[in-house]
Amino acid sequence: MIIIGEKINGSIPKTGAAIAAKDEEYIRMLARTQTEAGADYIDCCASVNEGELEVEEWLIGLIMEESDLPICIDSPDPQVCVDAMKFCGDRVGLINSVSGEGNKMDIVFPVIADTKWGCVALLSDDSGIPPTAEGRIAVFEKIMAKATEYGITPDRLYIDPLVETLGANSESLITFNECVKYIKEKYPTIHITSGLSNISFGLPVRKMINMPFLVLAMNAGMDSAIMDPTNRDMNGVLHGTLALLGEDDFCLDYIEAYRDNLFGPINRD
Amino acid sequence: MIIIGEKINGSIPKTGAAIAAKDEEYIRMLARTQTEAGADYIDCCASVNEGELEVEEWLIGLIMEESDLPICIDSPDPQVCVDAMKFCGDRVGLINSVSGEGNKMDIVFPVIADTKWGCVALLSDDSGIPPTAEGRIAVFEKIMAKATEYGITPDRLYIDPLVETLGANSESLITFNECVKYIKEKYPTIHITSGLSNISFGLPVRKMINMPFLVLAMNAGMDSAIMDPTNRDMNGVLHGTLALLGEDDFCLDYIEAYRDNLFGPINRD
Repeated sequence: MIIIGEKINGSIPKTGAAIAAKDEEYIRMLARTQTEAGADYIDCCASVNEGELEVEEWLIGLIMEESDLPICIDSPDPQVCVDAMKFCGDRVGLINSVSGEGNKMDIVFPVIADTKWGCVALLSDDSGIPPTAEGRIAVFEKIMAKATEYGITPDRLYIDPLVETLGANSESLITFNECVKYIKEKYPTIHITSGLSNISFGLPVRKMINMPFLVLAMNAGMDSAIMDPTNRDMNGVLHGTLALLGEDDFCLDYIEAYRDNLFGPINRD
Repeated sequence: MIIIGEKINGSIPKTGAAIAAKDEEYIRMLARTQTEAGADYIDCCASVNEGELEVEEWLIGLIMEESDLPICIDSPDPQVCVDAMKFCGDRVGLINSVSGEGNKMDIVFPVIADTKWGCVALLSDDSGIPPTAEGRIAVFEKIMAKATEYGITPDRLYIDPLVETLGANSESLITFNECVKYIKEKYPTIHITSGLSNISFGLPVRKMINMPFLVLAMNAGMDSAIMDPTNRDMNGVLHGTLALLGEDDFCLDYIEAYRDNLFGPINRD
């Protein structure tokens, strides 16, 4: 599982307040704790109305000082994403994100074409999120055609099939998993990723939906998640699921993650 | 999901102590709280070396007074199981269990043949638990042949494909789910059940294995569990999984279970 640590995102109220207050230490702490918790990438989303590129530069600089991890540059504006790549120096990361919407791919793909950068791609387009798996797969095929045109290999793509809240659409996970299975069968080296909490929007005790969502999406073939790597319950379920799916001989990774104190009781007297 | 409440079992230390001390109130409390938590059956296992039938009679009498639920008579001795049926009056329950071992089926099946009683059947035989799905399915076919002989329809059978601990066998869930899928495809009305905790024996923070085990087994077709219905995390994951699997329109059952205080924070000020 490839974990994209989600906490440096201005749309999270505490992080947004830290960005507004230029609270360097709080951002450094988020970079450090996510790294220690086993993240593979640190997502970096300014989520500000003005001066977004400058805020990205500041955030990326802090992350680079605190962590050796690659950065997942996150903005709804694809031009900001590609302009922020230079702040990452030689550190090859991810762009988050393109989709079938507007000219996003035309801005991002030529810039990353001859690099090793990867890219998150959402299966939505100018009409929003297609309600059916067929509709999302049509967007996927469009993205793959464009990626192929630019020589971007499947292993550099992180496809997010997108989920609606289960409270509005009971087929939400079923549609998501149909996309996952189709895509993974056609391109075994491609990555599938998703945030873990949209599925439970508006419902009580959201983790009781988010945890089994992670399990069922992993079972279908999802191999990445945009999540809080310091969430101990989610970490435990993630490692337990890998073991159950036969990807952890004798549960050695599970036991190691427990010993590294990534899940279970914090204090172990 | 058909929940068989597991707590009245003498092999659980607290329950065993209550049985030894003839602590009527503790047994009544277990019957009451499991009923309130939404169990469909109350399992009743004396787990004593001597006088097992008398202890079953006492336990069943207490359960009958505290709860309207049917009883799942649980003993390794099939003769005790059938002898204890008379303590249940008109209340039709389950026998737990037969298997391919010895003459268990020959003792239980003729007695329940012309009743509406159901039966848990384990996929083990005189050689123990077959290591492969093929081996367990061979035991299953033997059980089905015998059940058919006695006119016991598939919907009265609760098949437990059995799990070994994941720490010793990384394929444990995979083998279990192979059995589940084969059996459910061949007999859609049959029930599949399992205890939830054997899979994590010997591993740390067992619920991080047990919770995703429940999710993945339900996804494969398991429609019953022998579990502690007062376990709030397990309840939440169970209801969340039903919603994710498309079996709960607009999450109405999920929200109702939450309102009934079956999961989530106990105190909601």
